[in-house]
Amino acid sequence: MRTVALLVLLAATAAVSATGAPPVPYPEGYRQWAHVKSMVIQPGHALYEAFGGMHHLYANKKAEQGYRSGRFPDGAVIVFDLLEARSADNAVQEGARKVVGVMHKDARKYAATGGWGYEGFKGDSKTERAVAGNAAAACHGCHQAQKDKEYVFSAWRR
Amino acid sequence: MRTVALLVLLAATAAVSATGAPPVPYPEGYRQWAHVKSMVIQPGHALYEAFGGMHHLYANKKAEQGYRSGRFPDGAVIVFDLLEARSADNAVQEGARKVVGVMHKDARKYAATGGWGYEGFKGDSKTERAVAGNAAAACHGCHQAQKDKEYVFSAWRR
Repeated sequence: MRTVALLVLLAATAAVSATGAPPVPYPEGYRQWAHVKSMVIQPGHALYEAFGGMHHLYANKKAEQGYRSGRFPDGAVIVFDLLEARSADNAVQEGARKVVGVMHKDARKYAATGGWGYEGFKGDSKTERAVAGNAAAACHGCHQAQKDKEYVFSAWRR
Repeated sequence: MRTVALLVLLAATAAVSATGAPPVPYPEGYRQWAHVKSMVIQPGHALYEAFGGMHHLYANKKAEQGYRSGRFPDGAVIVFDLLEARSADNAVQEGARKVVGVMHKDARKYAATGGWGYEGFKGDSKTERAVAGNAAAACHGCHQAQKDKEYVFSAWRR
């Protein structure tokens, strides 16, 4: 009996997290936003499978405020733009886009994941979603470690 | 006699190129400009001595127009922001700033170097100049190869 109740509860929770939070919108115009910082993740790195390549972080105006003040207001959007990294001739160049990752702050809509909606748009697509209803497990699980920094890993590079 | 005339001419030319073009201003606010593209130049690369590290290119609004149209209007400014590249644990991270390189378009002021003024500001300084009057030899000599693209090497990455 207790087991059945737990399973029902788990099923209900899964349904809410899969469909309860509104989809994160594609971050139109982010290539004109401010550039926060960049990094290259190479084969052998623990995050290579998920995030291998050269990534750039971009911030809209409200996210810029967040990086500066430590408090991200609703409407703050951070983009994690992941490109292939092509190493040749002692240089690393940008290749094709792998995914456009997004963190979109809305304390009410995304309360279940720390006030952030997470999404990944595959390649150059604005509609093919890599995360969909799976943000809690696929994204927030790791970002939880940054709770003291509003769940954000990156910092503004001067 | 002919030799003396030539030396006088050379001396006059040197004086003009050293002092004739107005200094290129520091590109205030460029960290909020659009990010064009990035690259890492590693030991062993032919340009390592001059440009080793991770660099990011930024464009002001007029330079963005130039990247899109192929014609850079006066007032277009491109920044080449060169940071140290710190390789460790299968990742390349950004380090300290090495130089802020600038191309500043003004067809009249910088006519002697293809309409572009060139400068490099050392590290995080807004006043320590690496190029000064030496743009023709230190910068434009190489950029000359890109004459068909208005002397610009980089292209806008989507």
